Amino acid sequence: MQTIGYAAQSATTPLAPWGFERRELRGDDLALEILYCGVCHSDLHAARNDWGWTRYPIVPGHEIVGRVTAIGPDVTRHAVGDHVAVGCLVDSCGTCDHCEHDLEQYCTGGATGTYGGVDKPTGEPTQGGYSKHLVVRETFALRIPAGLDVARAAPLLCAGITTYSPLRTWKVGPGTRVGVVGLGGLGHMAVKFAAAMGAEVTVFSRTPGKEADAAELGAGRVIISSDKAAMKAARNSFDLIIDTVPVKHDLNPYMPLLGLDGTLVLVGQIGPVDEPHTGPLVMGRRRISGSAIGGIAETQEMLDFCAENDVLPDVEMIRMDEISDAWERMERSDVRYRFVIDMSSLAV
Amino acid sequence: MQTIGYAAQSATTPLAPWGFERRELRGDDLALEILYCGVCHSDLHAARNDWGWTRYPIVPGHEIVGRVTAIGPDVTRHAVGDHVAVGCLVDSCGTCDHCEHDLEQYCTGGATGTYGGVDKPTGEPTQGGYSKHLVVRETFALRIPAGLDVARAAPLLCAGITTYSPLRTWKVGPGTRVGVVGLGGLGHMAVKFAAAMGAEVTVFSRTPGKEADAAELGAGRVIISSDKAAMKAARNSFDLIIDTVPVKHDLNPYMPLLGLDGTLVLVGQIGPVDEPHTGPLVMGRRRISGSAIGGIAETQEMLDFCAENDVLPDVEMIRMDEISDAWERMERSDVRYRFVIDMSSLAV
Repeated sequence: MQTIGYAAQSATTPLAPWGFERRELRGDDLALEILYCGVCHSDLHAARNDWGWTRYPIVPGHEIVGRVTAIGPDVTRHAVGDHVAVGCLVDSCGTCDHCEHDLEQYCTGGATGTYGGVDKPTGEPTQGGYSKHLVVRETFALRIPAGLDVARAAPLLCAGITTYSPLRTWKVGPGTRVGVVGLGGLGHMAVKFAAAMGAEVTVFSRTPGKEADAAELGAGRVIISSDKAAMKAARNSFDLIIDTVPVKHDLNPYMPLLGLDGTLVLVGQIGPVDEPHTGPLVMGRRRISGSAIGGIAETQEMLDFCAENDVLPDVEMIRMDEISDAWERMERSDVRYRFVIDMSSLAV
Repeated sequence: MQTIGYAAQSATTPLAPWGFERRELRGDDLALEILYCGVCHSDLHAARNDWGWTRYPIVPGHEIVGRVTAIGPDVTRHAVGDHVAVGCLVDSCGTCDHCEHDLEQYCTGGATGTYGGVDKPTGEPTQGGYSKHLVVRETFALRIPAGLDVARAAPLLCAGITTYSPLRTWKVGPGTRVGVVGLGGLGHMAVKFAAAMGAEVTVFSRTPGKEADAAELGAGRVIISSDKAAMKAARNSFDLIIDTVPVKHDLNPYMPLLGLDGTLVLVGQIGPVDEPHTGPLVMGRRRISGSAIGGIAETQEMLDFCAENDVLPDVEMIRMDEISDAWERMERSDVRYRFVIDMSSLAV
């Protein structure tokens, strides 16, 4: 199937229109017309080859919402006309221990990324959601539940599940004391989810002035991380801290804020962090961990949770040809809180 | 009560005999004649003021085994003539949430160290087990179970409980895949305990030649940490790694060896470790944690476990006046695996 997308042709060229082929439908594939695609910081990292694995051309985008336009003969879960969503993964081995436990994101055989991956049957590179159409195995397409606003749902597929999953893994519920570091695309979803689960939510901010925004998202309070007295007063008072900061940074100010057996979960930075001091780990069994997106079943659970609890990201809708400006603004955190591309702005 | 101990008078003077007073017995105190005292790396750190909190003179020693010689009028748990043991703590607030859950080592009111601490009722400094006598609250004296060799039991009070507690916290049992980094006083106990709990135990060593020793302690294999092929082959194959290395080091080679949700527990180093890369944390929910000794109830449980399972440290018995040589040898890891001072060598 011929389609069009916005691709980077090299690490230094801006995204630009590019015509390319989507594969013909295999038995368990479905084709979809992409309606919306969220803009994730990873898109920019991949386009610029910041992680060293990018092959060009590359079409980014892994927060995808669309409408099914065709199905392969073996498809049973979705029908033409359904609204579906696709996140960061489009395939996995299906047979390893993690896949068998609905943890495809940790597939030891290597899960296939929505872009920048390799389609296992053909060896062709996968291309993402900054495009008009997508072909995907039906098991990796999520059902958009009735009542969920399709125009705002796209960021749930990465920013949403990336924060929902650790909140579930660490059993957040009524009264859990949750801190959120970084109030961007991931951070604002962490606040909304934790609040919807009944937690007491605190936002850590480097600068004052976030109180009203944080409160609107569901946070009970804001602590300015440079305020040493406030940080000291908050010691031993958190069960879980979700750290969404996507660059190298210092975890040490946050660790003593956790109570016994409390955990700081990294969901933003893939790379080094500053040298941690082991004192707060040893003297309180505190933990530093991380978490990657979520499995397919958990992603569906998350979408259903959002429909039931009226949880949606705050988005700023853009046209496809505004993507370079949007990336620039994203780099300086000038977005509340996620850009979404209205794919009707992209003509075939 | 007049007694004698070996004390450091400053950060730079060697330990030497020093006469000092133990307090008169309070109602819930017992007095004991110290029979044996283990030699912990912390003793040396404290004597040299490596942690910055030492006041002089200081008598180190927190792996203490003795015989009760007198009891206060309110003592009910121990009787004159009993063999008892005292570890790193001699008091705690008793009322905080952690104390109420038998986690005195994490007392938020501040537990009292066996040496270098401050006796709460009097404000007097506490002095440790490199001495002839000790006075201690009965609740912080452990019962030495029948059948446990009192001459070898002393190192259980720090090296033992420090490794036993995380093995219990992380629910090690039959088939659990446990790695141990560092084969010293703590490491050799971690191997013995994990093996006694039924775990599959692997020792990580920087140098070849430890296979026979490791096997004798109960380890199924040794992996040379500089052997990149062996380290790569061991990826995703550990549930828990106990890291006993007491200096700044690099955790990154070990993290990918853990399976999903696996934990590396630091029990040696109190201070910085090298910059961790978050990749193995994010892509596998692996955790870095720490653990400090154990609570009083758990320490008793550990001693009972040792008696039931015939677990004892390998010790080298020394005279009190050999302590400076012993510290020098300990600094170059020339001990299998713990020095114990025979306190009968110290005349009053």
